[in-house]
Amino acid sequence: MITTDICIIGAGPVGLFAVFEAGLLKMRCHLIDVLPQIGGQLSEIYPHKPIYDIPGYPSITAQALIDNQLEQIAPFQPSFTLGERVEQLEKQADGSYHVIGSDGTVIHCQVVVIAGGLGCFEPRKPELANLENFEKEHVHYMVKNPEKFRDQRIVIAGGGDSALDWTVFLADVAKEVTLVHRSDSFRGAPDSAEKVFNLAQAGKINLLLSHNLQSLNGNGHLESISLINKQKEGVLVPTDHFIPLYGLSPKLGPIGEWGLNIDKNAIEVDTFDYATNIERIYAIGDINTYPGKLKLILCGYHEAALMAQSAFKYVYPDQKLSFKYTTVNGINAF
Amino acid sequence: MITTDICIIGAGPVGLFAVFEAGLLKMRCHLIDVLPQIGGQLSEIYPHKPIYDIPGYPSITAQALIDNQLEQIAPFQPSFTLGERVEQLEKQADGSYHVIGSDGTVIHCQVVVIAGGLGCFEPRKPELANLENFEKEHVHYMVKNPEKFRDQRIVIAGGGDSALDWTVFLADVAKEVTLVHRSDSFRGAPDSAEKVFNLAQAGKINLLLSHNLQSLNGNGHLESISLINKQKEGVLVPTDHFIPLYGLSPKLGPIGEWGLNIDKNAIEVDTFDYATNIERIYAIGDINTYPGKLKLILCGYHEAALMAQSAFKYVYPDQKLSFKYTTVNGINAF
Repeated sequence: MITTDICIIGAGPVGLFAVFEAGLLKMRCHLIDVLPQIGGQLSEIYPHKPIYDIPGYPSITAQALIDNQLEQIAPFQPSFTLGERVEQLEKQADGSYHVIGSDGTVIHCQVVVIAGGLGCFEPRKPELANLENFEKEHVHYMVKNPEKFRDQRIVIAGGGDSALDWTVFLADVAKEVTLVHRSDSFRGAPDSAEKVFNLAQAGKINLLLSHNLQSLNGNGHLESISLINKQKEGVLVPTDHFIPLYGLSPKLGPIGEWGLNIDKNAIEVDTFDYATNIERIYAIGDINTYPGKLKLILCGYHEAALMAQSAFKYVYPDQKLSFKYTTVNGINAF
Repeated sequence: MITTDICIIGAGPVGLFAVFEAGLLKMRCHLIDVLPQIGGQLSEIYPHKPIYDIPGYPSITAQALIDNQLEQIAPFQPSFTLGERVEQLEKQADGSYHVIGSDGTVIHCQVVVIAGGLGCFEPRKPELANLENFEKEHVHYMVKNPEKFRDQRIVIAGGGDSALDWTVFLADVAKEVTLVHRSDSFRGAPDSAEKVFNLAQAGKINLLLSHNLQSLNGNGHLESISLINKQKEGVLVPTDHFIPLYGLSPKLGPIGEWGLNIDKNAIEVDTFDYATNIERIYAIGDINTYPGKLKLILCGYHEAALMAQSAFKYVYPDQKLSFKYTTVNGINAF
């Protein structure tokens, strides 16, 4: 059994910064993440893409940000369980928790912080008979590395921001981009839709509105996609890759059964301290929601700081918290 | 007259980041600051001290952070009025504002963002007859640059965290440190008080509890400070510098008369968007307060992001705001 003060579910940038804020208050952290490496979405989905909205970094790649954050928390010696999904939460008689992973790891902690990002959700999949035949190589529910599609033929499906934005982005990368949408208007931002229409008009992408997916064709290797339009006419689009971007659906799994208040795929929290409705359980970063919520890394950092102040009372029930500036006091390593 | 979308009062790190978040939403900013240079407290008080709690920076000097933030907002071409205090706010018939500076500068804007940090407050001064004779060179209401006191004799007065923390810090820098406090116990954090007691016991500082200040002595040049103890006995402490750290008192000046809700030296805001009680006026960073508030730069960054989303409706009343990720969309410079 692993014993720690705070168990953080999710080792993305916000979970990592929570280690720092907890460490300033002398609280130890253990992080558990279903991904095999530290860094969450950033390391998994877009390690080499620049981020422009981390305060003080005009541009930084996702991986560099994670590396810097690891250096920042090194004095507080966080420990990690990677590649293991959280399965169960068991409340102990004294109020503390056991967090239990899918491989049987048990983490005993005073406080649970859910910093699961979008990782607690799963992509919505189109209903196509032989989808799983191509899932390993040719079907992509998120764009992890745009370079994968350089000089390839791709079909994107969907009508929201994600479908629109990636269509615009990949128009410059892929050899051939087709955007398929079952309706004739988009749910995404009007100016993104306008960009897509302009690209279609300029002949830079193929836009197939009011078309439904019929089947994926190919023998192990994706060769084409069959579509059908409103007039029930079939269309065959040759392609190398299929990217359905239908959003995420809540697959909180066991977390969904802990009795947390959930609103539209996110855990409701109080902005006073980012606590959930269950005592000793907090939710920070993209996984939470509150009035005005923005899914930005920098907002998760703020949430982590306020969470740590609040969590202190469970870890040190007999001590009074005193707030200190690092500029004056420096960092006291464990 | 300067015309802009958002007038930001205060050009510290939080005011600067507000330019970035506003810029992503195509809103232009003009900043006005009473200090002669950009950077707020950071550049004024501790440019060379490292900060350890900026997410993603294990350590960065205050000035380097400001420089990086200026690079980050360069695409959005902010303009500045420096060395000028805000004197008046005039509401226009259409709801917009004129912000008027002490030198007569008029800034016409749709939204006012107060990001004044602690700069909107003034230090509390001890009541000593000839204090002003020494204020220019020998009396310091804040420690701007600790190196100034290297190998000097200093007297610090106060019983809060600021007095305790600087006593501990400067014990290693100054030649001789005397801490004077009128009571025999401290208001500051118990562990800081303990450090001070330990330093006194080790003979590394002089600790004078239950002593009151009587006078500053010297002819233009500070030579000593006269104190009196409970038994009405006088004590003369030779010194080069006097550092009274009695906290800040609200000297919001004209801002204090705008009808803003003020609570203990700070402007009350709603955590939904960091709006004040007056429409179109926001307050972000150390100047504001709300349940759970932490005076951290990283919290001000979050506040700036949510403020910008909310301010958009005043700048573009006919447009619907659509939220975009910089990682997907990049930065669209003005």
